[in-house]
Amino acid sequence: MALLIDIKQPGWMEDEELQAVLLKVYTQGDIRCAADPGNLDEIEMIAVSNYEMGEALRYPKLKLVQKIGAGVNGILDDDSLPASIQVARLKSDTPAHEMAEFSLACVLQEQRHLRQYRDNQARWCWQALPPRKAGETTVAVLGLGSIGSITAQRFVDNRFNVIGWSRTKKPLDGVECYYGVDQLAGVLEAADYIVSMLPSTPETVNLFNSETFPLMKPEAVIINCGRGDLIDEADLVEALDQGLLATAILDVMQTEPLAVNSPMWRHPKIVLTPHVSGWHLGDAVNDIAENLRRLDSGEPLLHLVNREIGY
Amino acid sequence: MALLIDIKQPGWMEDEELQAVLLKVYTQGDIRCAADPGNLDEIEMIAVSNYEMGEALRYPKLKLVQKIGAGVNGILDDDSLPASIQVARLKSDTPAHEMAEFSLACVLQEQRHLRQYRDNQARWCWQALPPRKAGETTVAVLGLGSIGSITAQRFVDNRFNVIGWSRTKKPLDGVECYYGVDQLAGVLEAADYIVSMLPSTPETVNLFNSETFPLMKPEAVIINCGRGDLIDEADLVEALDQGLLATAILDVMQTEPLAVNSPMWRHPKIVLTPHVSGWHLGDAVNDIAENLRRLDSGEPLLHLVNREIGY
Repeated sequence: MALLIDIKQPGWMEDEELQAVLLKVYTQGDIRCAADPGNLDEIEMIAVSNYEMGEALRYPKLKLVQKIGAGVNGILDDDSLPASIQVARLKSDTPAHEMAEFSLACVLQEQRHLRQYRDNQARWCWQALPPRKAGETTVAVLGLGSIGSITAQRFVDNRFNVIGWSRTKKPLDGVECYYGVDQLAGVLEAADYIVSMLPSTPETVNLFNSETFPLMKPEAVIINCGRGDLIDEADLVEALDQGLLATAILDVMQTEPLAVNSPMWRHPKIVLTPHVSGWHLGDAVNDIAENLRRLDSGEPLLHLVNREIGY
Repeated sequence: MALLIDIKQPGWMEDEELQAVLLKVYTQGDIRCAADPGNLDEIEMIAVSNYEMGEALRYPKLKLVQKIGAGVNGILDDDSLPASIQVARLKSDTPAHEMAEFSLACVLQEQRHLRQYRDNQARWCWQALPPRKAGETTVAVLGLGSIGSITAQRFVDNRFNVIGWSRTKKPLDGVECYYGVDQLAGVLEAADYIVSMLPSTPETVNLFNSETFPLMKPEAVIINCGRGDLIDEADLVEALDQGLLATAILDVMQTEPLAVNSPMWRHPKIVLTPHVSGWHLGDAVNDIAENLRRLDSGEPLLHLVNREIGY
């Protein structure tokens, strides 16, 4: 049995790089790259970052789709994926801390007016702009799993007032936590920054739409580092145009790369980054080799996804 | 005896605002604003943010120049200031934390390529750029007084590798500390980011010049939140043009506002902000009223500057 690596994420890790790392951890593993897959009947596990619809069907004996990263909606959305095939994600502190850092970078950039100062510099304009105090600024972190809780803590450490929201009740030190659909409105009304680390589930798809944007403060900023389908993009553009919120910073979008004809590229209130909030896999990379070993030996697998709830 | 408030910092706090705050703390104080100074013979203390050369001479009975903020070089540079007149600065955690936050905002902006992504967005370019890990990034904090030590701690809290440098030995938890002129070269050679919180003293004026820039890494970024005279600006432009360092982020400059004919406005490797790293005085504002009270009652004053060492 073999693991096939087929990352399909240009500009990031190469298949061969990951293969070399995994072979150091699991020297007995039959670990192949997409460029030279060998006999497809032998592939029982694939490791992917960008999953293609129907991809699993290429491998008749496939048992496990291993996502290289956290979000698995692209895989679960594949109706052709047999129920017998398991899906695993990676859980790691390293990209979680990077995502916390990225969202902090975005918040501080707004808080300290760095975009405005850069525009001002271009026109030789010297104008001091009052920064809001962190302690008088409320950051709402949506999604309080391993990534969201690390993110909330990072904002606490940087002296912000932090509130959290998740599907079920999850108490966090120093963070006022809310949960469930009923409590979302209060969170949106209170937040100066809304940082989403939510997974893509039936409950979160298009959660931000023409009904929820009006709940936000007109000066609020939404930062999406989770999954792109959280935001109805047509509704977002309309909400920004109407002044229902101030700014959207999007690291993830409905379609990536963003289509060239999207109005979001040129929208003055939208800031885009190309899905880079988490980057390094850290120790989590070893879990890929470990899952191959466990599959080989019939042991329980790591970080399996509950396909019912979607993460 | 009276305190005269003459802030002279457009866009920041008004004289009358500060007066109202101080009168709440010291209700008996004779606290006046520059717009209506009354009898100048009664002024024994002035509170200034931007000091004008010769300003002290307007007040025959002046005993104390109170800087509203930390840096006092603009006052000490006044050769006409009689030795009998004392100078006090403000020491406060609030602006120190704001300066720490500002320098963190600048470092994270570079670390996560936010300026580059903004340029890329303007030309519809989707290109992921690898972020460097905070733990593999060395931030050197120059100056380890109350501001610098809070700044160093903030970078430690955000998982950076932090080194410090100061005039005399100052151990800090979690920070490898160096001191004295002899150890500066090693600090400059090791740093990916150099954050200066140094005061302006004879030893620090033009400390960054054609002799020190070559010691830096070609990819290094210098962030100056301290005093503008730290950097020889002609040497800086030349060093950037030669690729001796990558970027300079300047919140303070030799002349503020920056002269319209300065080449720094348009330099592609220079990022300018208009002296905004610290903003709110916090509780330190009370020390202004307290110094007036102490002057009234002949008690020892707070935060007096040693005019020999310059801070």
